[in-house]
Amino acid sequence: MAQFDLPLEQLQQYSPDVQRPADLVEFWTTTVAEARATGDAPVLARVETGLTEVVVDDVTFPGFGGHPVKAWLVRPARADGPLPVVVEMLGYGGGRGLPHEHLTWAAAGVAHLVMDTRGQGGHWGSGGETGDPVGRSAGVAGFMTAGIDDPHDHYYRRFYTDGVRAVDAVRQVPGLDPARVAVTGVSQGGGGCVAVASVLSMVGDDVAAAMPNVPFLSHFRRAVQIVDSRPYGEITQYLSVRRDPAVEATVWNTLSYLDGANLARHAASPALFSVALMDVTCPPSTVYAAYNAWGAETGAEVTKKIDVYPYNDHEGGQAYRFPEQLAWLRTHAS
Amino acid sequence: MAQFDLPLEQLQQYSPDVQRPADLVEFWTTTVAEARATGDAPVLARVETGLTEVVVDDVTFPGFGGHPVKAWLVRPARADGPLPVVVEMLGYGGGRGLPHEHLTWAAAGVAHLVMDTRGQGGHWGSGGETGDPVGRSAGVAGFMTAGIDDPHDHYYRRFYTDGVRAVDAVRQVPGLDPARVAVTGVSQGGGGCVAVASVLSMVGDDVAAAMPNVPFLSHFRRAVQIVDSRPYGEITQYLSVRRDPAVEATVWNTLSYLDGANLARHAASPALFSVALMDVTCPPSTVYAAYNAWGAETGAEVTKKIDVYPYNDHEGGQAYRFPEQLAWLRTHAS
Amino acid sequence: MAQFDLPLEQLQQYSPDVQRPADLVEFWTTTVAEARATGDAPVLARVETGLTEVVVDDVTFPGFGGHPVKAWLVRPARADGPLPVVVEMLGYGGGRGLPHEHLTWAAAGVAHLVMDTRGQGGHWGSGGETGDPVGRSAGVAGFMTAGIDDPHDHYYRRFYTDGVRAVDAVRQVPGLDPARVAVTGVSQGGGGCVAVASVLSMVGDDVAAAMPNVPFLSHFRRAVQIVDSRPYGEITQYLSVRRDPAVEATVWNTLSYLDGANLARHAASPALFSVALMDVTCPPSTVYAAYNAWGAETGAEVTKKIDVYPYNDHEGGQAYRFPEQLAWLRTHAS
Amino acid sequence: MAQFDLPLEQLQQYSPDVQRPADLVEFWTTTVAEARATGDAPVLARVETGLTEVVVDDVTFPGFGGHPVKAWLVRPARADGPLPVVVEMLGYGGGRGLPHEHLTWAAAGVAHLVMDTRGQGGHWGSGGETGDPVGRSAGVAGFMTAGIDDPHDHYYRRFYTDGVRAVDAVRQVPGLDPARVAVTGVSQGGGGCVAVASVLSMVGDDVAAAMPNVPFLSHFRRAVQIVDSRPYGEITQYLSVRRDPAVEATVWNTLSYLDGANLARHAASPALFSVALMDVTCPPSTVYAAYNAWGAETGAEVTKKIDVYPYNDHEGGQAYRFPEQLAWLRTHAS
Amino acid sequence: MAQFDLPLEQLQQYSPDVQRPADLVEFWTTTVAEARATGDAPVLARVETGLTEVVVDDVTFPGFGGHPVKAWLVRPARADGPLPVVVEMLGYGGGRGLPHEHLTWAAAGVAHLVMDTRGQGGHWGSGGETGDPVGRSAGVAGFMTAGIDDPHDHYYRRFYTDGVRAVDAVRQVPGLDPARVAVTGVSQGGGGCVAVASVLSMVGDDVAAAMPNVPFLSHFRRAVQIVDSRPYGEITQYLSVRRDPAVEATVWNTLSYLDGANLARHAASPALFSVALMDVTCPPSTVYAAYNAWGAETGAEVTKKIDVYPYNDHEGGQAYRFPEQLAWLRTHAS
Amino acid sequence: MAQFDLPLEQLQQYSPDVQRPADLVEFWTTTVAEARATGDAPVLARVETGLTEVVVDDVTFPGFGGHPVKAWLVRPARADGPLPVVVEMLGYGGGRGLPHEHLTWAAAGVAHLVMDTRGQGGHWGSGGETGDPVGRSAGVAGFMTAGIDDPHDHYYRRFYTDGVRAVDAVRQVPGLDPARVAVTGVSQGGGGCVAVASVLSMVGDDVAAAMPNVPFLSHFRRAVQIVDSRPYGEITQYLSVRRDPAVEATVWNTLSYLDGANLARHAASPALFSVALMDVTCPPSTVYAAYNAWGAETGAEVTKKIDVYPYNDHEGGQAYRFPEQLAWLRTHAS
Repeated sequence: MAQFDLPLEQLQQYSPDVQRPADLVEFWTTTVAEARATGDAPVLARVETGLTEVVVDDVTFPGFGGHPVKAWLVRPARADGPLPVVVEMLGYGGGRGLPHEHLTWAAAGVAHLVMDTRGQGGHWGSGGETGDPVGRSAGVAGFMTAGIDDPHDHYYRRFYTDGVRAVDAVRQVPGLDPARVAVTGVSQGGGGCVAVASVLSMVGDDVAAAMPNVPFLSHFRRAVQIVDSRPYGEITQYLSVRRDPAVEATVWNTLSYLDGANLARHAASPALFSVALMDVTCPPSTVYAAYNAWGAETGAEVTKKIDVYPYNDHEGGQAYRFPEQLAWLRTHAS
Repeated sequence: MAQFDLPLEQLQQYSPDVQRPADLVEFWTTTVAEARATGDAPVLARVETGLTEVVVDDVTFPGFGGHPVKAWLVRPARADGPLPVVVEMLGYGGGRGLPHEHLTWAAAGVAHLVMDTRGQGGHWGSGGETGDPVGRSAGVAGFMTAGIDDPHDHYYRRFYTDGVRAVDAVRQVPGLDPARVAVTGVSQGGGGCVAVASVLSMVGDDVAAAMPNVPFLSHFRRAVQIVDSRPYGEITQYLSVRRDPAVEATVWNTLSYLDGANLARHAASPALFSVALMDVTCPPSTVYAAYNAWGAETGAEVTKKIDVYPYNDHEGGQAYRFPEQLAWLRTHAS
Repeated sequence: MAQFDLPLEQLQQYSPDVQRPADLVEFWTTTVAEARATGDAPVLARVETGLTEVVVDDVTFPGFGGHPVKAWLVRPARADGPLPVVVEMLGYGGGRGLPHEHLTWAAAGVAHLVMDTRGQGGHWGSGGETGDPVGRSAGVAGFMTAGIDDPHDHYYRRFYTDGVRAVDAVRQVPGLDPARVAVTGVSQGGGGCVAVASVLSMVGDDVAAAMPNVPFLSHFRRAVQIVDSRPYGEITQYLSVRRDPAVEATVWNTLSYLDGANLARHAASPALFSVALMDVTCPPSTVYAAYNAWGAETGAEVTKKIDVYPYNDHEGGQAYRFPEQLAWLRTHAS
Repeated sequence: MAQFDLPLEQLQQYSPDVQRPADLVEFWTTTVAEARATGDAPVLARVETGLTEVVVDDVTFPGFGGHPVKAWLVRPARADGPLPVVVEMLGYGGGRGLPHEHLTWAAAGVAHLVMDTRGQGGHWGSGGETGDPVGRSAGVAGFMTAGIDDPHDHYYRRFYTDGVRAVDAVRQVPGLDPARVAVTGVSQGGGGCVAVASVLSMVGDDVAAAMPNVPFLSHFRRAVQIVDSRPYGEITQYLSVRRDPAVEATVWNTLSYLDGANLARHAASPALFSVALMDVTCPPSTVYAAYNAWGAETGAEVTKKIDVYPYNDHEGGQAYRFPEQLAWLRTHAS
Repeated sequence: MAQFDLPLEQLQQYSPDVQRPADLVEFWTTTVAEARATGDAPVLARVETGLTEVVVDDVTFPGFGGHPVKAWLVRPARADGPLPVVVEMLGYGGGRGLPHEHLTWAAAGVAHLVMDTRGQGGHWGSGGETGDPVGRSAGVAGFMTAGIDDPHDHYYRRFYTDGVRAVDAVRQVPGLDPARVAVTGVSQGGGGCVAVASVLSMVGDDVAAAMPNVPFLSHFRRAVQIVDSRPYGEITQYLSVRRDPAVEATVWNTLSYLDGANLARHAASPALFSVALMDVTCPPSTVYAAYNAWGAETGAEVTKKIDVYPYNDHEGGQAYRFPEQLAWLRTHAS
Repeated sequence: MAQFDLPLEQLQQYSPDVQRPADLVEFWTTTVAEARATGDAPVLARVETGLTEVVVDDVTFPGFGGHPVKAWLVRPARADGPLPVVVEMLGYGGGRGLPHEHLTWAAAGVAHLVMDTRGQGGHWGSGGETGDPVGRSAGVAGFMTAGIDDPHDHYYRRFYTDGVRAVDAVRQVPGLDPARVAVTGVSQGGGGCVAVASVLSMVGDDVAAAMPNVPFLSHFRRAVQIVDSRPYGEITQYLSVRRDPAVEATVWNTLSYLDGANLARHAASPALFSVALMDVTCPPSTVYAAYNAWGAETGAEVTKKIDVYPYNDHEGGQAYRFPEQLAWLRTHAS
């Protein structure tokens, strides 16, 4: 079935009951505080790219645990005045690649930080350069079950925290406007962006806008029930081997701390989502689970919008997203 | 077998005996002359993109038969002096898409014309807008066998001619340097670029550089013998249905006029190729058939280089190509 | 899911709300009138086949735009008296092939016209010989989106009209009985036969019987929602690339003029359908959308029957259809 | 690799050393003698088909062990004089289907016996009606390893013998010319036809012509080395489970009695083969193994010809075969 | 959809209306009586395995029709007192393999009879040695449609009866406790174990426990509607070819005598099932159809339990089953 | 091609020129010395399994870096005298699973240590429990490229060292005979066993026998050239993204320290290999590269044998291996 998930009208109302840890906010505020206590200021090194209209810095900033995380910072060559910034997190398996792959935001006069993903960077594109110094529990090759026994140990706690620290980092760079930082990303990057915006709202440091596309890492439990694709399928594979109900309970408990559908309830920044109705990697109901929850705990009306691509699989809107995002950015971060 | 074609040492010497029509040059010089006799000057219309560092024109130029062909012309916003130009042809099934998908050359201070592909533009990316007003013979859905009965009617005669006329067009645009026009493309675009550079050399209008990546449309006969992938497989499918030796002879005769391995013999421009050793769409031996033939009929030593990607399938070098091409361009068109 | 569509009881009642153009009848009556104004009488040339019990003519008749369309006319060698005729349209990608592939109707004493499909004929079987002299808009290789911008330009307007003109043609051939012409076909041929019978009823020239098998080209919108197979998937692919709601509206508007579920409402001939419940190419609900609509606008009770194959995919009833169709023909055209 | 087997020039010379049992002829002459000692004359029952130009008999003849084997006998309705006959054996998994599926030979004035395949008839087409009363050894579902422990017990001994007895049967039917019986078939039917013609030559009852298409059941050992497709792959699967060299020796010994490359050496009838160079089910080298061996033991020059389809997989020449076969039949059986 | 069948809550209540033959019990009591009238006592031959802690006998016992069926009997080397016994039937296509593949039960002090499957044993594992001396009707290669025309002739009548006779056999072996015989198996073996326990209850010879895992051979009709995988798909394939409603009626009638969902109603032994919610070979609803029916006709409360594996496909619980089964066995057979 | 690698005769002579680091022995002797300097004695805890004929200990021993590695030690319940021991390493992605999955060696009177694989244990079987506390470089999810930048950091340095330390551990367990320790494993476990035996020979602590089956981790460079399957394909994927020749040089340098074809040259223990000729995961030429090199640097004739499975893919000999290995063990460790 091409549009295999719920019909659009039901998706728009979809508000599932997701297992929610009582100490979610405490977990994350502590995590952020600990991370901010480590590492120095970001280090920028100008890169020779052959490009004449943009300048690129090779950034190293302290992520989770103070671990060094790489990023590209791409800016227009002839900017004046502090620039708005878009912090981008990346899709599963990818890395920051080469600088000239990231020119769109700079061409629009916006600074663009492309954050490398720790331990990934080998599956597609042009590679990454950031290792993950933390070891892993027994599990499935991949990142969904790395540290699955405890939310403190889980890979995605580190990934999300790296994203928070990336925002912290750009807010310290001269020439960038700390009040106009947006976060974006596709798939894993979209899930990261949901988490980073939400966690930053928890600690009172809202971003100017969150712009996730076809976000991953939301409503894990439904995902494994309706699709068998990867990466959600790594959870399935893990549980298909460890057939112990206690293990299953541990898995769902750990993931509940990382679930975008839980985190999004705390988000207070204006959000522009996108979703694809034929997406068998990040099924639309899991995306709506985060979108419909966005800001629910804030006690306020949070501005949000979701663009729907009825005929796309996980590629979603691709290049059609940039004009929408640029307009959103100019509305909410100018 | 991962590296399924000939070993690299044999590829480097591979010089197959390709069926060569006696009137190849006449066919193409006549084709170009007829095309140049049609159509008006290219029309440029400035496009609002939201981008601040580049300017984009929506170009309509007369292609084969004077038919209107669309293109984007992307230039740095603050250029002075005539710019070098890269004319790009596109991969099978794609279209020119959206302007902000084409920023790399402009970010390097180079004007960039992205030519739409007639009748294509639906398979990937963001679409195209150029129809093909010429009908088609009975055949396989797709473009390999459209007009297969006669080289004059074949789709790729029109596609190549559109490319020649795209070069003609940019040479007429104020602010662009007609002496520094390079052609490039990937796959079908790479095959187009081989053909356009070769045909322009036949008529004495050499481009400054040809930079094909993993080019398609070369040594058709070997291609169908060693791979069954599409688009070469459209020929196989056509011949699997029309099991008449006379039809087969017609097919090979028609394609001989369009074969990059024949056309490349006439090329006189410095060429930078790339090839991938695990490419099952455009097998390495077919790429080397064109590369090794490059300039063979010119009676001169033509500068050429081929970059080899041993572990890639048809995606080839991707973003790793740009720095190489930029250096080549600066050497040969500056 | 093997029987993946609605349960049979729901299929039998399935009457969806399909977008219906107000000027549907006018569109088609004008189309037929224009086509009938072009072209000459059909030309028959006797073919040497080595067969002794049937005679075969190579027919060329004027189709849409007066364009020459090929067909085989196969008749028993020893017939006397005017014969009933079955006009057959073909499945997607096929052509009329070789004469001896079409002997069943003639063996039953019925004349059989096998109409070639313009521009197709390369995907399976033994080939076709009819080109399509009309060019195509930018789109997906294949026929679903060729001319998608306007119903007047769409490929299937021409295909349906060719079928109407094929019926016109056989009605002019001496020895054939113009009052006993039936239309049939499988898949695309079945969709064509739905359309041809319906359009001929619009213009008052009912065929004696319509006998579509697993018809394609009906209820396009549902088709792309529930299956991702080709050829319906060409529409999906087109819309997955052109992600503009205005484009989507254009697509559905154009297709509404060609939708069997709309056309069938005007059909007044007795119809024998067949459907397969595991058909993932032409899903059963799309077939029932046409079948249940058959004759709805005629204000009369139109005779119809549908044979159900519960365990078949798109191959449907295959050879089991002929005895059923022969009986139907003898009932309704004798 | 599309043309994955040996190059055509090597195929034409391919003469492998196949394991050959010393008592091959004795095995088969005894088998035929035993079979001929069982069963009565064939029984014909006229079938009502609705067809007017042909008549069809439902034939039951005694096959191996005298077991009843079904067939259709299709003849022109208005024949006079004894007719030449084509006996056809069928492809793997198929059955005789419905009578109106077999009209081509009758339309050419030739009687056509379509032999059902014992125990098969369920995989494609319209079914079969002949069981196999003999049980089976432990093995792989399918027919390649049924009775693999002993050539006397093997399924294909029975299948080949059924074919011999089918020829015997038609030679007893009034109105058919016993001197003008040809055998044909595709794939398994082609392999059967190689075997039947060869065995009949061993016993001095040559058929007038053998016309196998893309024959299966030849040079088993090479087949399993170069393809992993079914049905040859059933042997691979069997040996992958029974990893005992003694079992392997038994397998090759049993199959050596059934190998078309061995049997063909004894054939004395004029043979028209066909082969497809992209055939991954019956690889071309296995076909040439039989073709090149054809008649080698007869001490005479046996007329033979092979038609090559370079761009086809196992479907081979399909409808293109009939005109060639009809011409061959008229040359060698008239 | 990963969990593609009904939700768990519905599965637990799932009680479909399965076609039930009036003479089901008579059919089976007669079958058992006839089988018991044939064949001699089981023959045991000690096997040299190199193992020191277990002893293995090569068992030959009379199955259906008195046909010899092979089995391994594996026992601890140092047992004293009569041992409980587990009789195991095997999955589709497999055979008893090698003795040292069956050590788990013996290591727990339980005798273990591994019954070979007649005519199978070639698809996976290490092979089997038991042929099936009964021939087969025309059908699909495989066992689902072998003898499909009549329940008396169907392959699974013989397979189930072999299982009944295996229980009979171990009850005759000195040193084994006839009152403590359990049956088990996975997939086909699980379906066999459902049938054997049920049939033995019909004839008053209850086993001590039935322990089927992911059982096959239950609720055939739903199976072919919701999955297209093999082996259930062999039925689909058969009916896709024989498109005659009378054939379909025959198929469902025959299978109704073999349907675990019918047989289980008569079972009176304590049963431990397992099911996997992502099982696309034996869909969970078909397993629950047997489980929920278990003992329904006995007029008593029959002890039963089903373990659910939510994240597994057809592999189900695998090694996690043994501890559960051992505990069940010790509870119900000690 | 089913037997896609070199013909058997060439495999038997295959002695490729593999890049060999000058300091290979020093690298490993240092590695072993460092590992032996960490960690305490193995800890054994008796496990309740319900089994009566074997006893099982849950072992924790210090691996690389002194990191705790889990294992099962399975022994016959009634053994007397020191037992020979088989240390088994496991296939890619697996873990030690459940104790009752490992009964074969104990049933033969041999102690069996099943070593868990650090950081794996999630892909198949019943899971593992050993994490890998070391982080990873940017790369491909999986283990082939974890730490690829430096042989000291590579995952397989740790895995091999764990195996060495497992042998060290069993040599300290009372009741086990330190002079009769053999190593075995399939695939990754086979590669591990090649490495462990070779490294132990380097440091003068030969094992009594090495019995690798279809070993992985040998002649990496050829593997990626001839197969594109995983896990070797992780290297391909890594290099397909990082298209820098310097990266490629680093990769091959790192892997040269881990290559079974290099390590095996130093092995001095009698070795029983197995290989499968249709193995597309661990191609036969890579297995022969290790086998043919076995002992080459020892200056002595090292006893070795290789069993060939011509019709198997990567499953190889499976249960057919145990009798061969048991005999080898009894010959070389008794």
